[in-house]
Amino acid sequence: MRLLLLNGPNLNLLGRREPDVYGNRSFEDYLQQLRQQYPDIQLDYYQSNHEGDLIDRLHADGFTADGIILNAGAYTHTSIALHDAIRAITAPVIEVHISNVHQREPFRHTSLISAACRGVICGFGLDSYRLAIESFRK
Amino acid sequence: MRLLLLNGPNLNLLGRREPDVYGNRSFEDYLQQLRQQYPDIQLDYYQSNHEGDLIDRLHADGFTADGIILNAGAYTHTSIALHDAIRAITAPVIEVHISNVHQREPFRHTSLISAACRGVICGFGLDSYRLAIESFRK
Amino acid sequence: MRLLLLNGPNLNLLGRREPDVYGNRSFEDYLQQLRQQYPDIQLDYYQSNHEGDLIDRLHADGFTADGIILNAGAYTHTSIALHDAIRAITAPVIEVHISNVHQREPFRHTSLISAACRGVICGFGLDSYRLAIESFRK
Amino acid sequence: MRLLLLNGPNLNLLGRREPDVYGNRSFEDYLQQLRQQYPDIQLDYYQSNHEGDLIDRLHADGFTADGIILNAGAYTHTSIALHDAIRAITAPVIEVHISNVHQREPFRHTSLISAACRGVICGFGLDSYRLAIESFRK
Amino acid sequence: MRLLLLNGPNLNLLGRREPDVYGNRSFEDYLQQLRQQYPDIQLDYYQSNHEGDLIDRLHADGFTADGIILNAGAYTHTSIALHDAIRAITAPVIEVHISNVHQREPFRHTSLISAACRGVICGFGLDSYRLAIESFRK
Amino acid sequence: MRLLLLNGPNLNLLGRREPDVYGNRSFEDYLQQLRQQYPDIQLDYYQSNHEGDLIDRLHADGFTADGIILNAGAYTHTSIALHDAIRAITAPVIEVHISNVHQREPFRHTSLISAACRGVICGFGLDSYRLAIESFRK
Amino acid sequence: MRLLLLNGPNLNLLGRREPDVYGNRSFEDYLQQLRQQYPDIQLDYYQSNHEGDLIDRLHADGFTADGIILNAGAYTHTSIALHDAIRAITAPVIEVHISNVHQREPFRHTSLISAACRGVICGFGLDSYRLAIESFRK
Amino acid sequence: MRLLLLNGPNLNLLGRREPDVYGNRSFEDYLQQLRQQYPDIQLDYYQSNHEGDLIDRLHADGFTADGIILNAGAYTHTSIALHDAIRAITAPVIEVHISNVHQREPFRHTSLISAACRGVICGFGLDSYRLAIESFRK
Amino acid sequence: MRLLLLNGPNLNLLGRREPDVYGNRSFEDYLQQLRQQYPDIQLDYYQSNHEGDLIDRLHADGFTADGIILNAGAYTHTSIALHDAIRAITAPVIEVHISNVHQREPFRHTSLISAACRGVICGFGLDSYRLAIESFRK
Amino acid sequence: MRLLLLNGPNLNLLGRREPDVYGNRSFEDYLQQLRQQYPDIQLDYYQSNHEGDLIDRLHADGFTADGIILNAGAYTHTSIALHDAIRAITAPVIEVHISNVHQREPFRHTSLISAACRGVICGFGLDSYRLAIESFRK
Amino acid sequence: MRLLLLNGPNLNLLGRREPDVYGNRSFEDYLQQLRQQYPDIQLDYYQSNHEGDLIDRLHADGFTADGIILNAGAYTHTSIALHDAIRAITAPVIEVHISNVHQREPFRHTSLISAACRGVICGFGLDSYRLAIESFRK
Amino acid sequence: MRLLLLNGPNLNLLGRREPDVYGNRSFEDYLQQLRQQYPDIQLDYYQSNHEGDLIDRLHADGFTADGIILNAGAYTHTSIALHDAIRAITAPVIEVHISNVHQREPFRHTSLISAACRGVICGFGLDSYRLAIESFRK
Repeated sequence: MRLLLLNGPNLNLLGRREPDVYGNRSFEDYLQQLRQQYPDIQLDYYQSNHEGDLIDRLHADGFTADGIILNAGAYTHTSIALHDAIRAITAPVIEVHISNVHQREPFRHTSLISAACRGVICGFGLDSYRLAIESFRK
Repeated sequence: MRLLLLNGPNLNLLGRREPDVYGNRSFEDYLQQLRQQYPDIQLDYYQSNHEGDLIDRLHADGFTADGIILNAGAYTHTSIALHDAIRAITAPVIEVHISNVHQREPFRHTSLISAACRGVICGFGLDSYRLAIESFRK
Repeated sequence: MRLLLLNGPNLNLLGRREPDVYGNRSFEDYLQQLRQQYPDIQLDYYQSNHEGDLIDRLHADGFTADGIILNAGAYTHTSIALHDAIRAITAPVIEVHISNVHQREPFRHTSLISAACRGVICGFGLDSYRLAIESFRK
Repeated sequence: MRLLLLNGPNLNLLGRREPDVYGNRSFEDYLQQLRQQYPDIQLDYYQSNHEGDLIDRLHADGFTADGIILNAGAYTHTSIALHDAIRAITAPVIEVHISNVHQREPFRHTSLISAACRGVICGFGLDSYRLAIESFRK
Repeated sequence: MRLLLLNGPNLNLLGRREPDVYGNRSFEDYLQQLRQQYPDIQLDYYQSNHEGDLIDRLHADGFTADGIILNAGAYTHTSIALHDAIRAITAPVIEVHISNVHQREPFRHTSLISAACRGVICGFGLDSYRLAIESFRK
Repeated sequence: MRLLLLNGPNLNLLGRREPDVYGNRSFEDYLQQLRQQYPDIQLDYYQSNHEGDLIDRLHADGFTADGIILNAGAYTHTSIALHDAIRAITAPVIEVHISNVHQREPFRHTSLISAACRGVICGFGLDSYRLAIESFRK
Repeated sequence: MRLLLLNGPNLNLLGRREPDVYGNRSFEDYLQQLRQQYPDIQLDYYQSNHEGDLIDRLHADGFTADGIILNAGAYTHTSIALHDAIRAITAPVIEVHISNVHQREPFRHTSLISAACRGVICGFGLDSYRLAIESFRK
Repeated sequence: MRLLLLNGPNLNLLGRREPDVYGNRSFEDYLQQLRQQYPDIQLDYYQSNHEGDLIDRLHADGFTADGIILNAGAYTHTSIALHDAIRAITAPVIEVHISNVHQREPFRHTSLISAACRGVICGFGLDSYRLAIESFRK
Repeated sequence: MRLLLLNGPNLNLLGRREPDVYGNRSFEDYLQQLRQQYPDIQLDYYQSNHEGDLIDRLHADGFTADGIILNAGAYTHTSIALHDAIRAITAPVIEVHISNVHQREPFRHTSLISAACRGVICGFGLDSYRLAIESFRK
Repeated sequence: MRLLLLNGPNLNLLGRREPDVYGNRSFEDYLQQLRQQYPDIQLDYYQSNHEGDLIDRLHADGFTADGIILNAGAYTHTSIALHDAIRAITAPVIEVHISNVHQREPFRHTSLISAACRGVICGFGLDSYRLAIESFRK
Repeated sequence: MRLLLLNGPNLNLLGRREPDVYGNRSFEDYLQQLRQQYPDIQLDYYQSNHEGDLIDRLHADGFTADGIILNAGAYTHTSIALHDAIRAITAPVIEVHISNVHQREPFRHTSLISAACRGVICGFGLDSYRLAIESFRK
Repeated sequence: MRLLLLNGPNLNLLGRREPDVYGNRSFEDYLQQLRQQYPDIQLDYYQSNHEGDLIDRLHADGFTADGIILNAGAYTHTSIALHDAIRAITAPVIEVHISNVHQREPFRHTSLISAACRGVICGFGLDSYRLAIESFRK
């Protein structure tokens, strides 16, 4: 099984950015742990601050990967183009968020991509990614 | 570890109600499987169509359980009283939904309880409950 | 033919409550007249001020009755749980109102259950119930 | 007793227009059946696609008829002039709809004329007209 | 000087319709009095319940009359077509209302034609028409 | 007959302020002309940029004057206190505006005082005041 | 004089729930003090987390008590059924809140029951109840 | 091939009305040119200021014409009845506008008929009609 | 103890203005009674129709008085400046209203100052002031 | 004549993505046909999923091309930056859409770029591009 | 060069009011420093809590000063009268705020006067005034 | 001191694009002048039409620069990702605009980034940048 973990804008700063909201661990560290935890799954990873890059990558892997775990960051709330990209591909996409977006500013309560995804997991810190992986092991 | 699975209105009809949305398996069947899968966790279960019953039960278990997995059904979208009950107790509460509510009617896109919960998991069918249990095994 | 007449909150006060809006006749009196008028129809009756009770009763009769005539009172405007209960059962449900809700406060102009019902009849006083019965005699 | 059945725009196409919504029977056929069913009632009938014609007819019959059964079609949702015409006359007016408008597009959920009518009946197919006639036989 | 007094829907019932709002005098009576009061002004008059008729008449007189006094009735609140007709002609148009529309239902507080008219006069009973005539005698 | 002409904020700059909207004549000039035109009417005049002053003056004259002609300027759109003052007194108040407020910014389309006034006259330039005086000579 | 103190959802947790908002004293303690303070008034007390129970109790006492002091908790913001129950009974009802709801989340700023109550008292901590009692001693 | 060109309110004034928005050429002139340009297509033409006339004509030609090119003018923004008429017939309807409505007042940005039409063409001046004809020659 | 009773616009007309809403007793009369009832409390009183005066007075007494009882009248609904003044001072401020504002026009349902005050008391007629005084005697 | 055909996000998947909405033909195939059909016009083509790339290309060609045919895809509904880019250049831009966006989700009904374009063509499948080319051949 | 610094409601309390938002320095202190820093500019200063006073002062200096630096405080968000006063005068007006209003309550995010001012400077503490002075030294 | 001047979409066209709004001087010319004016400050400059590039650059310089002056152009109104990037870095960011955005289209009145910035300066033409630099020289 091959899964793509796809991270959107500002998530490259994880561990460095607002640690009280996002924690102080880098995503690379966490990824290493995930790969050890799931040795039978190929976990590809890509991060970009560019909406277009995220779309390009969804297109590139969206017809061959077994699943995509997408933390679209702020684009979650503004990008219909990502919504369309998710609908255009065949791999199931899981929307994840590190924080519980519903406890934050109102503009983070609306997701433009949820309706195009299979499911949504939010609020479990980095563990949201592990739960998304678990959803593919049903 | 003791977890409470708490189901709200109309979920007693699971397996019988709109099977294309909710599947055709009863929750009791599924619960049995979950208990086999997690023998080390005590999985208590309660269902009610009464908003007040759900609050009573949150109060009863909310200071002693290790966690609560709440599918509040339609009360998700209308009950501030449940929001307050969740905030009033000490056990962490996970909001789950069987269907991806964001693919359904607009009035199901707003949750009044998400902000009071630790996290949200929706769209994975009955497997949403298992993922919520997993979140307590981190 | 068996029909359930199901009345929601405050309708137990009929004849006593705001007579200029709801008239001064108790529902029990009216029910007796209806039963005489329709001797060939079994007219069951239940009233509750509890949203959960109404749902429970819809579930209990919703797979065996030939039809349900529901005056959900104020829950008409706030209960998605009732909407779901109506959609979850197989008996057709007719929404009735004694007063013409469109002539009253704006918050009574929106019904959360109409879309789940077969039809709506409002504004004919207690006669709304008789017209709903007539709809099953087509 | 003399009742006017007044039909608004596009209802002349009944039986020909979107049969899955409106059925495939012409209104004239149905009218004939109604007249046989209610031989003691004079059932006048008029249809027009012109908002002004409907107002003119409400004025013409609105002080002499015993009641008016109005299916204003799409003008239901846009015509304050019809609202005023109904309020300006003395005959009671019943608003009817063939389909359950609450199951259709949001712009059909708002009626500008309900508050001026005595009552509303919708969702019973052509039988909505019969139920409206029944309301005058109380 | 030639002025057109143009009345919209339901104003033919003046004196007969809701006398507590509109008074109990017919417009024809009032018109006779106006003509005596302003013998030097040719006061043409037209009433229709048809939006299209009002537009046709605005077109017909809108390039030759010295002014038009328009009580568009309920079309005031719903007709962009009248707005366009007023803007398309060269005669100045005064919007008048018999009642003070701001003391009535909210849907009467918005005028779609005011922005196309020279000025607005409302709330003076039938005297609103006389004041509009006065505005042309400045 | 004694009438009070009451002008609100910025109207002291009339003739000096945005002449393309308000014309280039001072109100004092115009007032002189009005007094000549209506020698039998005592035309009192007061202007203030202070909301409180306008209220004080309405109270002072509102039980003795035969009428008040009020151009509340920008306070038209923001002052509920003026609304209350108008309702609290016994003299009828006419709301006037020099420009057609409906052709200007959206925030000028809403009047908080219209519902408390007898009538509204707007868009006739300074002649709006004369028409308001005329309304008292009916 | 007999007054009913009626508390809604989650108020049974008083003293235990979010003490920074609601204080750390149980309602029972406070009630004892009130009874000592007002020995000449019979202070009945009832609490429930069930909307239906609150309605039932309003009906039961609403025609015999001299007054009802209602803290409807979260149902304040969502229950039209309570609004109707208050309007249906004859005893005057005072709406009270412990916290100043206007300093909290926006969804607590709207009360669906205020318009049915005689008056509102909020923000004085438990002392809000005493002030409500005082209102009956005028 | 037979196409109907159907023009709504105020378009009879084309060439005469607001030439900076609509140009100064009459539609009849333009029609003559179109007929020369497309000698193999029968181009029928009808204009009315009456909403009901437009509906009548859609019904009359809507089952036999190969296509209808509709410029509904201001009714575009207010007529659900036209929407229904378009949906009720079988001929494909193209919505055209001479001006780019999106550059004009906000109330022209919403079309109630677009969803019922096959396609929309706007902003090309009179050439919008030619492009609509072209769409039938694919 | 020294308390300031501060009354806003139009409250000087108390006893004279809309007696069915505000009663027919002057505030001065009532004040005298209050002073007799609370001989141990210094009750200062000030009324103004000027928003600025109310702010000035809040500043003047807001650092020395033991409490301020503010009926801001219509400024309640429009004045952020009063909100800021209340927050800027140290004396606790109680918002009072004579009528139950929630039973009146919608624009009286929103208070811009509640969030800055300690508590709110409304609907008890003049007795609202006494209850506010009581709140300081806790 | 040189025209630029500029396609936005996800249009690279044409023929592969949701064929029931967008058809099953690739844009490259269609482009070849267009070039044969219009041999006298140089048809440049560019596609990108990056908002910034589309802006860069508008800048690059926007002062030299004779026209630009822009299908901005999902950016149509979210990009003010594209709106500004279109307004900043001198070449006329035609907005095209393959599907009739008004028949789809509400968030596709609003275009942020229409007001900056010369005209809009939507709903004709790939033929929308040909009609846009035709608009330059007037 | 002569500039007027004009401060609105509650700014007289600067240094005393909510020091965490506005700092603990009085405006008079700061003004002295500014005058030393800009010895070649005449810096007039006026503060009032009265909307009318601010308007009067804008009128008084608005035709002779070289510029006006206006911190309208809370009137920023509620005063159309100030908007009009700014537009009515010839001196350019700069809107300043001490705090970054966009980080505070939503009702402080909307300014009714920005559109009438030349520019806006906010968020720099008292230094906002110096930056506004700098803007006149370009 | 090192400051980054960061310009967003379409600002590369400065001097060429809508000169009546933005002036006719290129930013490079202006930058040269700024560098001469502030020889002791290192003024870095970067422009991009790509949202992702702006985020990348904020990350790259946001932990080392002394300040960032950001004109995000149209992304000001649509980019939550930029908001997050600003909050994620440590350098203070000043939001600047050349034009007074409040005098332009409504969609330019809302900034999604202001709340994340230290302050906002708009409406001074290119001089807005100089004022922002001045803010760092306090």
